[in-house]
Amino acid sequence: MIDVAVVGASGYIGGELLRLLLDHREVRVGAAVSTRLAGSRVDRVHPNLRGRTDLTFTALDALGDHDVVFVAVGQTAGLDLVPRLRERAKCLIDLGADFRLRDPGLYERYYGTAHTAPELLGSFVPGVPETHRAELAVADAVSMPGCMAVASILALRPLAEAGVVAGAVTVDGRIGSSGSGVRAEQMNLHAERSGTMRLFAPTNHRHEAEIAQATGVRARMSATGVEAVRGAQVVCRVPVREPLGDKDVRRLYRQHYQDEPFVRIIAQRRGLYRLPEPKILSGTNYCDVGFATDPDTSTVVAVAALDNLVKGGAGGAVQCMNVRMGWPEHLGLEFPGLHPV
Amino acid sequence: MIDVAVVGASGYIGGELLRLLLDHREVRVGAAVSTRLAGSRVDRVHPNLRGRTDLTFTALDALGDHDVVFVAVGQTAGLDLVPRLRERAKCLIDLGADFRLRDPGLYERYYGTAHTAPELLGSFVPGVPETHRAELAVADAVSMPGCMAVASILALRPLAEAGVVAGAVTVDGRIGSSGSGVRAEQMNLHAERSGTMRLFAPTNHRHEAEIAQATGVRARMSATGVEAVRGAQVVCRVPVREPLGDKDVRRLYRQHYQDEPFVRIIAQRRGLYRLPEPKILSGTNYCDVGFATDPDTSTVVAVAALDNLVKGGAGGAVQCMNVRMGWPEHLGLEFPGLHPV
Amino acid sequence: MIDVAVVGASGYIGGELLRLLLDHREVRVGAAVSTRLAGSRVDRVHPNLRGRTDLTFTALDALGDHDVVFVAVGQTAGLDLVPRLRERAKCLIDLGADFRLRDPGLYERYYGTAHTAPELLGSFVPGVPETHRAELAVADAVSMPGCMAVASILALRPLAEAGVVAGAVTVDGRIGSSGSGVRAEQMNLHAERSGTMRLFAPTNHRHEAEIAQATGVRARMSATGVEAVRGAQVVCRVPVREPLGDKDVRRLYRQHYQDEPFVRIIAQRRGLYRLPEPKILSGTNYCDVGFATDPDTSTVVAVAALDNLVKGGAGGAVQCMNVRMGWPEHLGLEFPGLHPV
Amino acid sequence: MIDVAVVGASGYIGGELLRLLLDHREVRVGAAVSTRLAGSRVDRVHPNLRGRTDLTFTALDALGDHDVVFVAVGQTAGLDLVPRLRERAKCLIDLGADFRLRDPGLYERYYGTAHTAPELLGSFVPGVPETHRAELAVADAVSMPGCMAVASILALRPLAEAGVVAGAVTVDGRIGSSGSGVRAEQMNLHAERSGTMRLFAPTNHRHEAEIAQATGVRARMSATGVEAVRGAQVVCRVPVREPLGDKDVRRLYRQHYQDEPFVRIIAQRRGLYRLPEPKILSGTNYCDVGFATDPDTSTVVAVAALDNLVKGGAGGAVQCMNVRMGWPEHLGLEFPGLHPV
Repeated sequence: MIDVAVVGASGYIGGELLRLLLDHREVRVGAAVSTRLAGSRVDRVHPNLRGRTDLTFTALDALGDHDVVFVAVGQTAGLDLVPRLRERAKCLIDLGADFRLRDPGLYERYYGTAHTAPELLGSFVPGVPETHRAELAVADAVSMPGCMAVASILALRPLAEAGVVAGAVTVDGRIGSSGSGVRAEQMNLHAERSGTMRLFAPTNHRHEAEIAQATGVRARMSATGVEAVRGAQVVCRVPVREPLGDKDVRRLYRQHYQDEPFVRIIAQRRGLYRLPEPKILSGTNYCDVGFATDPDTSTVVAVAALDNLVKGGAGGAVQCMNVRMGWPEHLGLEFPGLHPV
Repeated sequence: MIDVAVVGASGYIGGELLRLLLDHREVRVGAAVSTRLAGSRVDRVHPNLRGRTDLTFTALDALGDHDVVFVAVGQTAGLDLVPRLRERAKCLIDLGADFRLRDPGLYERYYGTAHTAPELLGSFVPGVPETHRAELAVADAVSMPGCMAVASILALRPLAEAGVVAGAVTVDGRIGSSGSGVRAEQMNLHAERSGTMRLFAPTNHRHEAEIAQATGVRARMSATGVEAVRGAQVVCRVPVREPLGDKDVRRLYRQHYQDEPFVRIIAQRRGLYRLPEPKILSGTNYCDVGFATDPDTSTVVAVAALDNLVKGGAGGAVQCMNVRMGWPEHLGLEFPGLHPV
Repeated sequence: MIDVAVVGASGYIGGELLRLLLDHREVRVGAAVSTRLAGSRVDRVHPNLRGRTDLTFTALDALGDHDVVFVAVGQTAGLDLVPRLRERAKCLIDLGADFRLRDPGLYERYYGTAHTAPELLGSFVPGVPETHRAELAVADAVSMPGCMAVASILALRPLAEAGVVAGAVTVDGRIGSSGSGVRAEQMNLHAERSGTMRLFAPTNHRHEAEIAQATGVRARMSATGVEAVRGAQVVCRVPVREPLGDKDVRRLYRQHYQDEPFVRIIAQRRGLYRLPEPKILSGTNYCDVGFATDPDTSTVVAVAALDNLVKGGAGGAVQCMNVRMGWPEHLGLEFPGLHPV
Repeated sequence: MIDVAVVGASGYIGGELLRLLLDHREVRVGAAVSTRLAGSRVDRVHPNLRGRTDLTFTALDALGDHDVVFVAVGQTAGLDLVPRLRERAKCLIDLGADFRLRDPGLYERYYGTAHTAPELLGSFVPGVPETHRAELAVADAVSMPGCMAVASILALRPLAEAGVVAGAVTVDGRIGSSGSGVRAEQMNLHAERSGTMRLFAPTNHRHEAEIAQATGVRARMSATGVEAVRGAQVVCRVPVREPLGDKDVRRLYRQHYQDEPFVRIIAQRRGLYRLPEPKILSGTNYCDVGFATDPDTSTVVAVAALDNLVKGGAGGAVQCMNVRMGWPEHLGLEFPGLHPV
């Protein structure tokens, strides 16, 4: 049993980390750090943990050494914090945006501020076991991609690796309100956010750079907030070098994912859930991937869905920890999801 | 054509007043007052008014004299404001909570602060044409009851007036998130408020006092925030002096409401909308009332539904203005509502 | 005042036609035809019309002659019905899919069955005043495009007409559940449909052909059912011949739509509703259009939103009737929409 | 490890049983019976089970002997089926309505048909470990109460057992759409059911009889379908013999439930989740209970929330099986629930 800490434990990703880690049989949660709520019980803001823990939040100053430290703080807040915390942990897993891109120029372009620790960027392993399992097994610093980036990467990799992508890909992302975090801002009010199809990023979504970095494919991404609390879906239009039919693409995906515990291939001809649907993934660590083909136009539409707080965040991080520690990869991530829901 | 002003015009009730008044053929909107947003275009925060008006918000200081002034400000903010504004208008219609109760002791008990203008309390006519039409026709100060109070009053009046109520009534209110106003608070975040059955007032809801004042019936009220943006519904359990069947109760309601333009009696044996349903009332000025009887226990369940921002707020206020000005009561309030929705 | 009939009056589009026509000051609704519900009151299935009409449904056999007949029946049902009904009306407005395409070959390809009245296809004027106002003024047969086709056409026309489109466009449509109609099918159950991001048409959506026919632009369309009852939005990625910035595109849209009563240009830098959002359009006849530009990749993202049952159906049809009769185009279509909602 | 069967496995309760049983470490699912879908894969209609099982549905005829048989069929379908299936199992757990009431007269009154196996009614133990743990440990036939009945029983028992209840209780139930089952009926269509506050049972809800049977308290129950897929909440107004304050009531609840693994007492003065809220219980076996007091009127408002398909159905049944087999009660029921959601 190892000892872990969660920094940024009062946010939505932080809460999800606590949910998963408190039930993980190889882990003891040694600290839940929240500057804002130090001294309060954890279940005050994470009501699903009532009766599951008596933990209270602690201040950052009180953080000691831990085997694994998970850091889930807002953009740019990690620039200063993450480098300091690396000292306190055998392995640090960063769920923020600040150490995802290897190129500090891209960071500045997409985040609008210069990176203050560019020398560290190369040392973080991307937190995607499906693409970096071997490196993760020995990593001491891991950076989790954004939730829609993870989905896009998993949707696109089989095509990118097979060398069939013929040009820039468009990615249309859709996401629930939990992706906006716990901040009480006007735009996140229920009366304003409910029932929207809010195209908050019509062009140049930040995950473009992550997708390109991970797949070698140029991506043009837009994103829309739709009515859901959890859940993200990406629909990627991929121009391919030659007409590909369903069988061709299914073979590529199967080869790529047949042994993956958390990637399911969903591309069916009938039924109500023929392509990846986020709602049945709430609480699970699955990333469902699927596709449709249009041989006439040499296009493949690749689709992926996941729970933005789990496989797109806390669950992916726990999966990385499992890889890093040499444990079975599904430990603590067994929940199959609900239907109907 | 008269000239009107809306004070508190950037809130949800204020926006609804603007929507109705801008399309009212006898009215010119002379001022939309918002301290917070003075100088901004009205359609910046009320996007449904794009292309309908070029109005900008003005500061309170700039308010001149108007025929009718509508005041839609938060609790206790009206204590000081409303008395001052009465000077500026032939008729002031207050949509806040501060001048609803005639008894300053009840105000203090339910709102937790002493009333600072108790001498004025008796001079406000309740803004319910169905119960105070004659007084409203000559009123120079009107106070709109709370949205769930209006619904409860209209549900209960036929029984109360008939003298059949045998004791205290229980009122179970359910309401959408727009009832919480435009403030960006944690509790109103989409991720927290979505899909809730939040029993925010299990006992002693403030509207109890208004209901008692208007009907003479003691009411014990609880209220729950459910998943909706607009809409309020009350379910009232009424003990009656003798067993009453559907026919008896229907007769009482019909006698009471047969000539009312905005009260429909909905109590059907079949169909999907057998009792009052708020969702089909969005945007309308209807208050649908209905009932079910349980003769075995001498109980009548009286039900009412309305749009909390319209008949429970801005629409009711416009209806009162219509009465006051001697216009057809439905002017500017013709929208029938949508289905499905 | 003219006399009109609605055939298919018990469906969702039919109900919306009744709502609009019953309040239209130049129109008398002479017949509401429903084979399934002949003899029943109209407000039994359209509860929003309670207190607004005592109309009952009539059988098709009982249909007499009317000035305008609106036909809102399901796919292929119109093949036989529409030609027969043309005799009974000075002007027939078809809201079904069967007379939208001029090319019977495309009909067969997209609808999977041969067209049985191909000789009539050329005689229907597309029901889009923004593109066919002059023809509509004298038309005796009108065919309303699909809801997402209308949105796409209005989003794309300013670019297509300006000759800046450099190749095939991708259209990503999102739509609420009312688009699936009133049929009680498993896929439309609340428990299954609620909260979905159901990519029901990943490629080759039927509206592709309509969009190409109306704009001359090749379109590749996918469509997703998202959580909403009403509302449709299209996000179109348009490759353009040369880099275009916001100002360039805004000028094109302004030139095109400055005098249109029901097209608003929404492309703002700040606020919560910066691009077209369907939820604030419920019940209105607006089609909001907007855009974002990415000069680096010579791409314009064109966006449109509307209420699929109004501007994408019944409202558009009423607007066409207004044009045909020479009335002000906004008659009966004044509702501005709600916010919040 | 024991062998179990689920009859009625294609419904929503059936699917939830499969979800829980497939992950239960002491159980093998020997058969999933569905007459309608015999031969189809289980994950065709329960998409959350993709990758978790290769099970197919079998016909009823093919059912062999099993250690435990769970029966989840519709009302009256169990009258014939359940008696026959008792032969095939050491223990039968019925999740339908037909063997809940001990009094056949009450069955006929509430279900409108005579009971055809009244002699068996006394032999079913109610499936509520909190009230019948000892009997369940040796039961060979168990009948699960309705979901809102379970919630009401757990809310009311501490008061009923303490002898403080002074008269009839009113129960206001609210429930999500999954409670209506998998049937494709008009009333359950998304467009009709979405956003409703549908008071489908204003008086005399069927669970009244179950509540009275289990608690000795007369209950008058109404029920409303609100916007949710999963989740049930009951708000019970309880007249008490003498004024009780929060401390008094909290003591009663604590005494009653301090050792219960699945009942949490939620009655807090602050926070967003002060009283039982169903949404954070989706997928869990918790029944959260809480209360508010109004000493002035000698009233206690008792509240309970649960997931209607879990603690109000499949989860409760698994808990009963655990009791029956002498296993730890929480086996297979560990999921803590999600927040936000």
